[in-house]
Amino acid sequence: MARRRQIYEGKAKILYEGPEPGTIIQYFKDDATAFNAQKKGTINGKGVINNRISEYVFTRLSHIGIPTHFIRRLNMREQLVRQVEIIPLEVVVRNVAAGTLSKRLGIEEGEMLPHTLIEYCLKDDSLGDPKVSEEEIACFNWCSHEELQDMSSMAIRINDFMCGMFAAIDIRLVDFKLEFGRIWDGDYSRVILADEISPDGCRLWDINTGEKLDKDRFRRDLGGESEAYQEVARRLGLLQNDDS
Amino acid sequence: MARRRQIYEGKAKILYEGPEPGTIIQYFKDDATAFNAQKKGTINGKGVINNRISEYVFTRLSHIGIPTHFIRRLNMREQLVRQVEIIPLEVVVRNVAAGTLSKRLGIEEGEMLPHTLIEYCLKDDSLGDPKVSEEEIACFNWCSHEELQDMSSMAIRINDFMCGMFAAIDIRLVDFKLEFGRIWDGDYSRVILADEISPDGCRLWDINTGEKLDKDRFRRDLGGESEAYQEVARRLGLLQNDDS
Ligand SMILES: Nc1ncnc2c1ncn2[C@@H]1O[C@H](COP(=O)(O)OP(=O)(O)O)[C@@H](O)[C@H]1O
Ligand SMILES: Nc1ncnc2c1ncn2[C@@H]1O[C@H](COP(=O)(O)OP(=O)(O)O)[C@@H](O)[C@H]1O
Ligand SMILES: [Mg+2]
Ligand SMILES: [Mg+2]
Repeated sequence: MARRRQIYEGKAKILYEGPEPGTIIQYFKDDATAFNAQKKGTINGKGVINNRISEYVFTRLSHIGIPTHFIRRLNMREQLVRQVEIIPLEVVVRNVAAGTLSKRLGIEEGEMLPHTLIEYCLKDDSLGDPKVSEEEIACFNWCSHEELQDMSSMAIRINDFMCGMFAAIDIRLVDFKLEFGRIWDGDYSRVILADEISPDGCRLWDINTGEKLDKDRFRRDLGGESEAYQEVARRLGLLQNDDS
Repeated sequence: MARRRQIYEGKAKILYEGPEPGTIIQYFKDDATAFNAQKKGTINGKGVINNRISEYVFTRLSHIGIPTHFIRRLNMREQLVRQVEIIPLEVVVRNVAAGTLSKRLGIEEGEMLPHTLIEYCLKDDSLGDPKVSEEEIACFNWCSHEELQDMSSMAIRINDFMCGMFAAIDIRLVDFKLEFGRIWDGDYSRVILADEISPDGCRLWDINTGEKLDKDRFRRDLGGESEAYQEVARRLGLLQNDDS
């Protein structure tokens, strides 16, 4: 493998310079963290599976007209993507109460929300990714009003699509997190979907048994993390042929 | 004094049935609490001063067309107000970073905000009055969209008015909290300003020295709480004649 420059090492992925300008390589690690990296561990084979699941979801999202950074998968753990200027917000979409929402508002986990909620968190580990309001996003100019509109309408469409996709394989999409980034075309920029979509950033519950098939198994010490991630990939039809 | 029925005892006030239907009496106590009532104490004379300051502010707000619950002050510690159906939200207006905003977003206390921010907290002590988004307010129907609009536009006007009022007495209005309630007229309801406006729910800093003239003296064990509250009342011209 040719030598290449590492751009960034994050909690779950490493970014390398890509073969052409404006591209980067996402390398998916097995490392897992929770509670703002206070808890650390590994989930065997997670990187391989997340690389595949994210490829699968991003490809299908592009088919319904969602612009994404995904170009192509390179190998078991790597994918080539367009380099973006990450917007420092995590866009969280929730269909069912769970996690911090349950805790903050005193709503029992598993309760269906009266309607889908979007929330925004500032991507800043040192502050614990605090939830921020649209007004605060405007006040501190973390992105423009138009960008926020674009992200929220994409998030709603992505949610509808993924609810359908997971329902088809008997999985309830409880909530998930998205990241978006800016790409420039001369003086103009537009927002595209970036990062990854995988059981690391989604809550996925088996529709029949309620079993958790996501990172909550790791967060809450439930065991069987690798098996849960594999089960999601298997139901999506991604485990037949173990190619490159 | 005639016997009267107590409706509610809160952290800082007691509510009694008023003389006519649709009215109640707010009795201002010296009790002070902080950090969701984990810290408790008294501030000598606070009830008397808050009753006067709140009367002063509510009266002047009604002169600029803000509808309020205030009817008249009855004596040193009591005021007669219109009974409302309290909307379970605390409306917080911030001009300068301080308190929980500073902590959550990592902005130093005292930094002027790029523009005024409004935030909403669910009035629920058992949950620690969590911050909620406009979308969550709509989702769980804590008030209607129109009510939220009315509250936020009143909050902005109240902020402008109070910034001016405090600037005139060399005080910087850093932030403050409002409560609103519904009054019914047949099938129709409208929203009016309720509760109190006093150094209990405002951050007030001396413009020249930066000295805190509000409940942060109690929260942060700075001492001199009574004197600080008195100083605000004195500057507002409320301490000349010790009537009733
Ligand atoms: N297309 C992209 N261009 C540039 N940066 C990206 C892109 N997609 C994702 N990123 C960023 O790369 C990092 C991915 O690594 P990860 O381990 O998830 O990091 P982190 O610990 O910061 O979440 C994230 O910081 C993410 O915001
Ligand atoms: N006009 C009004 N009608 C009915 N309730 C009111 C009115 N104004 C304020 N209240 C409520 O009365 C209580 C005032 O007492 P307080 O000690 O501040 O209580 P708390 O501990 O709940 O904040 C608050 O719960 C407030 O929401
Ligand atoms: Mg990440
Ligand atoms: Mg109160």
